[in-house]
Amino acid sequence: MSKIVLHENERLDDLNHLGRQIIQRTDAFCFGMDAVLLAHFPKYGARCRVLDLGTGTGVIPLLMAEEADTVDALELDAEMAERAARSVEYNGLEEKIRVKQGDYREIKELYPAESFDVVLANPPYFPVKSGLAAAVPEKAKARHELTATLSDVIRAARYVLKYHGRFAMVHIPERLDEIFVALSANQMAPKRVQLIEPREGKPANLVLVEAMVGGQAGSIRWLPTLRVYDKEGKYTAEALKYYGKESME
Amino acid sequence: MSKIVLHENERLDDLNHLGRQIIQRTDAFCFGMDAVLLAHFPKYGARCRVLDLGTGTGVIPLLMAEEADTVDALELDAEMAERAARSVEYNGLEEKIRVKQGDYREIKELYPAESFDVVLANPPYFPVKSGLAAAVPEKAKARHELTATLSDVIRAARYVLKYHGRFAMVHIPERLDEIFVALSANQMAPKRVQLIEPREGKPANLVLVEAMVGGQAGSIRWLPTLRVYDKEGKYTAEALKYYGKESME
Repeated sequence: MSKIVLHENERLDDLNHLGRQIIQRTDAFCFGMDAVLLAHFPKYGARCRVLDLGTGTGVIPLLMAEEADTVDALELDAEMAERAARSVEYNGLEEKIRVKQGDYREIKELYPAESFDVVLANPPYFPVKSGLAAAVPEKAKARHELTATLSDVIRAARYVLKYHGRFAMVHIPERLDEIFVALSANQMAPKRVQLIEPREGKPANLVLVEAMVGGQAGSIRWLPTLRVYDKEGKYTAEALKYYGKESME
Repeated sequence: MSKIVLHENERLDDLNHLGRQIIQRTDAFCFGMDAVLLAHFPKYGARCRVLDLGTGTGVIPLLMAEEADTVDALELDAEMAERAARSVEYNGLEEKIRVKQGDYREIKELYPAESFDVVLANPPYFPVKSGLAAAVPEKAKARHELTATLSDVIRAARYVLKYHGRFAMVHIPERLDEIFVALSANQMAPKRVQLIEPREGKPANLVLVEAMVGGQAGSIRWLPTLRVYDKEGKYTAEALKYYGKESME
């Protein structure tokens, strides 16, 4: 591990994955279960080239780097991108993970067309009603579509994915209709979908979607709904598979 | 109850619902769990006018007649429509349920535009690959899109539904992307969706969708995933709510 320089208001958090650690700000959005679920959701092929759109702290690349030949990570916010790059360096992964600062609404200026096998995205979940953007609290900014919409991220993914390449995203199930419509408009079809329910009897609050460029509509493989906690409030066996057992018991 | 005339190869089956019974052929498709789930899924408003598209044996109207002011039931096959009408008469429901023989691909010739509050459909689930239509066995015809497609049923529903009227359908989850795209193309948005899993750890094999004409995209309320059987192979408490307890224990 490299020597680390932590800035003010930063701390080093354990990822519970291959001994890796991540730099996060104490006063900003920190990664959650959604990022962990997404990182382990796609089927990464051999020698695949992966792009993470809107990487934030870099958590997703740090959780799946060993699955890929290379991971490119794009982040709009310059300070976040710099922090993600420091985390990558701290974990000695700078040969594998390349962090870039940039806006995926201008994807054509950043990466060549059809150059990736897998694209990942944990985008903002909530549309911003006009006029309310200023009212979104700092910590919640990663969760609101202030700089890019669902449609922007799907269009960017389509541009950089090879034919039959796969796009994996975590989002809120409330918007699954918009997701399927936008995928279809961009020549992608969902192939694997999984609902995440916090516990038995509660409605789903997250959905994982893996879509394929040029895939056929009407052929979704649903994974069994994942329940995170059991009746006693303990992680279920399925949830522990995603997290890595050592940290959860 | 009226006196009943059963034809050759017909039998009278108990619906486990308000003492109602249904005439079914012993050698043709009989109603299944999908029809029962659908009949009890929508929120029927007060004094609502309901249309069942492709009623088959008339099972859905017989399971929900008391929820509506009137139920119209449309069936393409003349023999099926006649049998459904006899079941309605046998249950003394001919004032409430009106069975008509007709093709919903020509819906404009059958019912006035925007004349129903709720439309129900348990349509064929599987697309027919060209040339294979003849190979579909007799009993499986209700499950293959020989006479109408997903798009046909959604278009017909849109035509007869009032603004803010609701369309409820049971289908296979593999095709939820096509369903959401077709709803969106017909000015409808899904409002309530529920996956049905046969048991814990198994992927969903049915999905219930309630959509609203003029509804806003991205506002799906997911109901908790329904598991039909528990680990011991007995009906779960949630499944019994749909079926009526008396018949299942």
